[in-house]
Amino acid sequence: MAVKYVYRFSEGSAEMKNLLGGKGANLAEMTNLGLPVPVGFTVTTEACTRYYEDGEEIAPEIGTEILEYVGWLEETAQKKFGDARNPLLVSVRSGARASMPGMMDTILNLGINESVAKLLAEKSGNPRWAYDCYRRFIQMYADVVSGVSKKRFERLIDEKKAQCGVTQDTELTADDLYDLAQEFKAEFRYATGETFPSDPKTQLMGAVRAVFSSWNNDRAIVYRRQNDIPGSWGTAVNVQEMVFGNMGDTSGTGVAFTRNPATGEKKLFGEFLMNAQGEDVVAGIRTPQSIDQLAEVMPEAYAGFVGICAKLEARYHDMQDMEFTIEDKRLFMLQTRNGKRTAAAGLKIACDLVDEGAITPKEAVLMLDAKTLDTLLHPQFDAAALAAATEIGSALAASPGAATGKVVFTAEDAKARAERGEAVILVRLETSPEDIEGMTAAKGILTVRGGMTSHAAVVARGMGKCCVAGCGAIVIDEHNKRFTLGGKTYSEGDRISLDGGAGKVYDGEIATTDATISGEFGRLMAWADEYRKLKVRTNADTPRDAVQARSFGAEGIGLCRTEHMFFESDRIAAFREMICADTKEERSRALRKLEPIQQSDFEGIYEAMEGLPVTIRYLDPPLHEFLPKEDPEIEQLAADLGKSVQQVRDIITSLHETNPMMGHRGCRLDITYPEIAVMQTNAVIKAAINVRKKHPDWTIVPEIMIPLVVELREFRFIKKLVADTADALISASGLAMRYTVGTMMEVPRACLTADEIASEAEFFSFGTNDLTQLTFGFSRDDAGKFLDAYYKEKIFESDPFARLDRNGVGKLIETAVRLGRGVRPELKIGICGEHGGDPSSVAFCHDAGLDYVSCSPFRVPIARLAAAQAALRAESR
Amino acid sequence: MAVKYVYRFSEGSAEMKNLLGGKGANLAEMTNLGLPVPVGFTVTTEACTRYYEDGEEIAPEIGTEILEYVGWLEETAQKKFGDARNPLLVSVRSGARASMPGMMDTILNLGINESVAKLLAEKSGNPRWAYDCYRRFIQMYADVVSGVSKKRFERLIDEKKAQCGVTQDTELTADDLYDLAQEFKAEFRYATGETFPSDPKTQLMGAVRAVFSSWNNDRAIVYRRQNDIPGSWGTAVNVQEMVFGNMGDTSGTGVAFTRNPATGEKKLFGEFLMNAQGEDVVAGIRTPQSIDQLAEVMPEAYAGFVGICAKLEARYHDMQDMEFTIEDKRLFMLQTRNGKRTAAAGLKIACDLVDEGAITPKEAVLMLDAKTLDTLLHPQFDAAALAAATEIGSALAASPGAATGKVVFTAEDAKARAERGEAVILVRLETSPEDIEGMTAAKGILTVRGGMTSHAAVVARGMGKCCVAGCGAIVIDEHNKRFTLGGKTYSEGDRISLDGGAGKVYDGEIATTDATISGEFGRLMAWADEYRKLKVRTNADTPRDAVQARSFGAEGIGLCRTEHMFFESDRIAAFREMICADTKEERSRALRKLEPIQQSDFEGIYEAMEGLPVTIRYLDPPLHEFLPKEDPEIEQLAADLGKSVQQVRDIITSLHETNPMMGHRGCRLDITYPEIAVMQTNAVIKAAINVRKKHPDWTIVPEIMIPLVVELREFRFIKKLVADTADALISASGLAMRYTVGTMMEVPRACLTADEIASEAEFFSFGTNDLTQLTFGFSRDDAGKFLDAYYKEKIFESDPFARLDRNGVGKLIETAVRLGRGVRPELKIGICGEHGGDPSSVAFCHDAGLDYVSCSPFRVPIARLAAAQAALRAESR
Repeated sequence: MAVKYVYRFSEGSAEMKNLLGGKGANLAEMTNLGLPVPVGFTVTTEACTRYYEDGEEIAPEIGTEILEYVGWLEETAQKKFGDARNPLLVSVRSGARASMPGMMDTILNLGINESVAKLLAEKSGNPRWAYDCYRRFIQMYADVVSGVSKKRFERLIDEKKAQCGVTQDTELTADDLYDLAQEFKAEFRYATGETFPSDPKTQLMGAVRAVFSSWNNDRAIVYRRQNDIPGSWGTAVNVQEMVFGNMGDTSGTGVAFTRNPATGEKKLFGEFLMNAQGEDVVAGIRTPQSIDQLAEVMPEAYAGFVGICAKLEARYHDMQDMEFTIEDKRLFMLQTRNGKRTAAAGLKIACDLVDEGAITPKEAVLMLDAKTLDTLLHPQFDAAALAAATEIGSALAASPGAATGKVVFTAEDAKARAERGEAVILVRLETSPEDIEGMTAAKGILTVRGGMTSHAAVVARGMGKCCVAGCGAIVIDEHNKRFTLGGKTYSEGDRISLDGGAGKVYDGEIATTDATISGEFGRLMAWADEYRKLKVRTNADTPRDAVQARSFGAEGIGLCRTEHMFFESDRIAAFREMICADTKEERSRALRKLEPIQQSDFEGIYEAMEGLPVTIRYLDPPLHEFLPKEDPEIEQLAADLGKSVQQVRDIITSLHETNPMMGHRGCRLDITYPEIAVMQTNAVIKAAINVRKKHPDWTIVPEIMIPLVVELREFRFIKKLVADTADALISASGLAMRYTVGTMMEVPRACLTADEIASEAEFFSFGTNDLTQLTFGFSRDDAGKFLDAYYKEKIFESDPFARLDRNGVGKLIETAVRLGRGVRPELKIGICGEHGGDPSSVAFCHDAGLDYVSCSPFRVPIARLAAAQAALRAESR
Repeated sequence: MAVKYVYRFSEGSAEMKNLLGGKGANLAEMTNLGLPVPVGFTVTTEACTRYYEDGEEIAPEIGTEILEYVGWLEETAQKKFGDARNPLLVSVRSGARASMPGMMDTILNLGINESVAKLLAEKSGNPRWAYDCYRRFIQMYADVVSGVSKKRFERLIDEKKAQCGVTQDTELTADDLYDLAQEFKAEFRYATGETFPSDPKTQLMGAVRAVFSSWNNDRAIVYRRQNDIPGSWGTAVNVQEMVFGNMGDTSGTGVAFTRNPATGEKKLFGEFLMNAQGEDVVAGIRTPQSIDQLAEVMPEAYAGFVGICAKLEARYHDMQDMEFTIEDKRLFMLQTRNGKRTAAAGLKIACDLVDEGAITPKEAVLMLDAKTLDTLLHPQFDAAALAAATEIGSALAASPGAATGKVVFTAEDAKARAERGEAVILVRLETSPEDIEGMTAAKGILTVRGGMTSHAAVVARGMGKCCVAGCGAIVIDEHNKRFTLGGKTYSEGDRISLDGGAGKVYDGEIATTDATISGEFGRLMAWADEYRKLKVRTNADTPRDAVQARSFGAEGIGLCRTEHMFFESDRIAAFREMICADTKEERSRALRKLEPIQQSDFEGIYEAMEGLPVTIRYLDPPLHEFLPKEDPEIEQLAADLGKSVQQVRDIITSLHETNPMMGHRGCRLDITYPEIAVMQTNAVIKAAINVRKKHPDWTIVPEIMIPLVVELREFRFIKKLVADTADALISASGLAMRYTVGTMMEVPRACLTADEIASEAEFFSFGTNDLTQLTFGFSRDDAGKFLDAYYKEKIFESDPFARLDRNGVGKLIETAVRLGRGVRPELKIGICGEHGGDPSSVAFCHDAGLDYVSCSPFRVPIARLAAAQAALRAESR
């Protein structure tokens, strides 16, 4: 059977979104609800997919089918394309499954040409309207179909106005507009070398082709990547009889929401413009009126619209975002869709709808966009102040929130100025663990290099601090403390602002508003907690982070990175002494200094978690990361250690690695230096014993996690060290304390041999950052150099470090889960990579049967909601 | 049913090697053949495995079973442990499945003690013999069971001789020896704090435990790793009634081969010593006599021995390596086994045995050790000169062959001295592509850092050049051109020698002998070619390598690395110009200079291969590898390019990568710079067309290989570039030329999505070097820092870069083969990593159903033989 590529609105329904796109499906739904919708049809998303399969050509049979429906439309409308008496004009609009700014949107008045325009002028007795339609069409068509810049036509309009001595478009006469149309056609010929098409069917096919092509323009690709929309979906095209808001003072056009999209307040919200076509509202040529005023200007149309709003909310059980046109007092609906809203409005609307009985709590949970949730937890820019600000650059939205302050270039400067009460933004080529204190002191972090899982991004998210990462457009001179961006040079003390949620950098200061958590937040989260199967833990290295995360609902710590504890200034000395030790004895001596420090850190964390589970990962990074890089620091270290500068340099050289990511780190350190694992076990178990003694009613079962395991025998070797040390301490304490030893699954080989490893490991936690690096062979520090080309060429649709790659990394995870549970059915399995806070990845974790996800504190609410959504979606599958 | 842990010799057979070990199985076989074998029993390898399972304890039931067999032995021999009239003495010897030097070997005379010794002295009328046995036993037992150094006892012997005023051991009297035994016992007590055990059963259990423990001593672990012997096998223990070669002038002991193990000549070969025990022959205290002389000394024993040799060869169909003892003119056989031999002898013996009708050609093929084959293709040290040489260090046997010459520290010095006719050894911290010319000029290469797949190792093997890599004991000062090793400092011009097959470094010059390929080599290879299923190709980048590899039997090129062509001095300039290009136009201009150079390289290779298949891999390494690192070179480059030094430095900085192995390389370069792929396609196809035009009868089907693919869409993008370019050239040429486009499978994700990739790729070639790096997360440049600890702790038994890891990497390969062939049954699949020349890995490739392996030229014969062995073994499964 031949595939059907075109549907009349009356043949569709809201459920047919995948085939008809959102706009087409909702036009169909409104048609079938009996609402006033201009007649029309939809060319399906499958036609778009076919268009790409056919090498960006519209197949002849699809062309034929479209023209058949044009025939039907002509019959129904009792008008004909190019007809000398009743000419048909149509709008052509794109419409993907999900609303997608960035694609070609709309061409109005298609079907008009010289003779049609003249006829309409005469017939309507409104030549100004007719020629206005004509010039608008040429302008729009030239822009979106033939790529002739709008500016060329705007210039002609400006010239015409100057020539006529007027300042407003509306002051131009019918003759002026007719002349402009002629000039536009000449301009088109000049720009393209072709005559402007006058045949309506040719115009239509050009427009359809332009919609299909716009699916793959750069902006659309970027938008899809940011919003997890697959490139394979394609867009539909809607062809609809024109109605005219520009027919005079009894006509108009507008957009409105059934509720306030910024606050969620239940009150019609929107604006309209009399005697105008759709694009005028957006273009802001005249100031539109508030929708309330329509009640006064055209009470009947307004009453009709209010009734329609109620019908649509009753049908869609959600706030609607609508477009309408009034043609000579008659109201027509051109679009409806579930409206975009701020996170705060989303919460209020969902709760109100539940209270109104329109939806169930489950539907409320499914309705929210989990990704936007953390904007509620961070300061944001004041909207008015932001509108007036100058954007100077954009890069990765590495950690949300808004920050404004003075530029500093070093961690020391950040600390010093912060101590003086100044708000600072730390700007670095890239950050390293040595910058931690400076990052803590800064309001926001801006880096030149690095991706979504770079050091700066990961640490900033952990702190809930605003970060824009990988801003390659910056030319930085760290030595002289200045950088250039957006054509301006900034020195220390100059002010900039960052929007970490949008990845934008702004010149100067912008006022911010504080984070506010409403009562609705708590209601929604409580519902989500009821439905989700996945537990949600947090990645936290300090008691402060742990408390923060618990306030956001974390049910435990899934990843406590012990090495972050070593970077603080009072500890790094002893740690460096350990690294530079020449003998096992020297090393043990240094470790003995570190042990009580670690122990007290762990005690703090156990105290903060009050008996919730805590997974502690043993030392992971290569040792050279902890050594100084600059001469004065090296000299100081030599002096501290009583070694010569050359000896310290030799140690640094001997620790150098070509590919440190794949070097001497993780459990490899425990195998070469077993005394490190012993020290860490001492600290973990002694801390647990002390806290249990203080709080005998708390359940404290230390979960010890061995990183970077590739082979069972590595794990077994270290587990034995742990057990020998821990068992002796526990038995001496007289307490009945359990502990578990598990592994971070972050190397492909561990996943491939998970059955062997599970024979000894009591839990798995997928470290998806490293697992993604190794599965792809992408160094996250270096991949930025080529990933942009990958997006541009549509090789990747999303950043595998932000959104878990189901096809590759996901297969390894599924394999490991199957093999591991095959050997040990009760195996506890979680994920502690950055993906733990990404909704799409959380959904994968639910489907893969994991027990928990762990993410940075500020993403905990996202994970809770996403986990509930995944469970509810799985339920309804 | 209880497991049986002990077998009488008469209960076993040669087939029971796995259970009884090689020595035990052959003692059983000789017993059952009716040969004169002292009575005894074998404790099985399973008992050894059990010993380790039980935490290095002999389980009570095994102890009991051993003692039962002691009872049987006492009954059969009509002697008893510690008996006052007929005391039983036994030998205790280890014996694994495969012969394994490095383990505890032998304890003789076990059962002797103070009273037994006195009794034997009296009863035999030969007190010297009795006390000699006694002191020998104490000495051996103390050493191998209790770890008391032999030297302590040798010192006592020396003191005794001095005291007696004699120089030879044989000059010591019975009383002297008795006194020595007492001194030995005192020394034992002093060293261990324990009394020397006098109870024979205690002695026996101690000896059994020592044999089991020696299975896991450091030397045994190293040997197993080098010889692919699994740690799980364990060793057996043989307990056998003593016969005495030290009873006087009608007694003796010896070792012999049925043929010459150095040349293969069919003539008894060996030596014996009168009035001696086994260890004297090895210890070299007296000079043994040639086995021929035994015919004169003891004609009857000799005749008996010759007869036994014939029987054993008839039974084993192979050259035998035997130990025997003559006790008062009576001949006893103590061991037989298939003898170790040189590669040359192996070939001759195999061919002779076929000609003698003893074995079939298939058996001849299976009999050879593929690993040793390449020693035939390289110069070797003269054996006598080597024996006199001083070893100063040992490291990885990275590329076989022997080299001797003057030390140089830079590629330039190597070139300059070689041009003056000097033989040089290039010593480097590590090599980089810039060193290629120096490596070509040197006789051998010695590096301080790097593993079996480091740059030096890979390139040296490709050149067939001797290389010892990763000699961490060297302290090098490259700047001042000197290094210290083995306590001696070497400067430029000092002489050293390298044995790349053994990984040894020697002081001074050692004479070498040339490679010699015999007629037997050809016969064996012809048989191997007949049986194998796998094709064997070579990794070759130059026409010279290609010709070399063809002479060794390569059936095509499996990997031609195009980047190696760029390092030669006449090309690097244009290549650097390409890298430093600011615009696409500048880059294209540089590429136009490179294209004819590449084309002529490819023409040379097609000419050399005369129509055999050639797989050309597109540019793979990150671009920064090609840029200079030293100031003068950077300045020169800036001058050449007309850029400022700072600009060139900025380019170098911008190309820096944290983890270059996982950075901007492989097909990622073609996606960011498609013009590189276009240039390479032009060069490949134009070369193929030119050579086809010259040789119309040759089949030339260029195989274009895209490296580092992780995702189908990467491959599709580049395949389209290739096809657009190639199709136009071919159609313009008027030739009917085919070409194929395939991918290197070297990233885990490619294997996991092989079904998708195979929908477009026409062949797969596993790049197991990178695949191993990513599957393990081991940087091959850095793993040396911790792998030694892994071997020591028995976490790894072999180097995954030398022997393919079946458990992890192998699973990915099998997955990719299954997924790929599922989509494209005719998919051609090969392997081109370093593993292609390793016999165990070749066997895996056969089992996995690959079509071919590709390896460096000098390993081609190994691969041919290993492939045949794998096919024959699979056939017999």
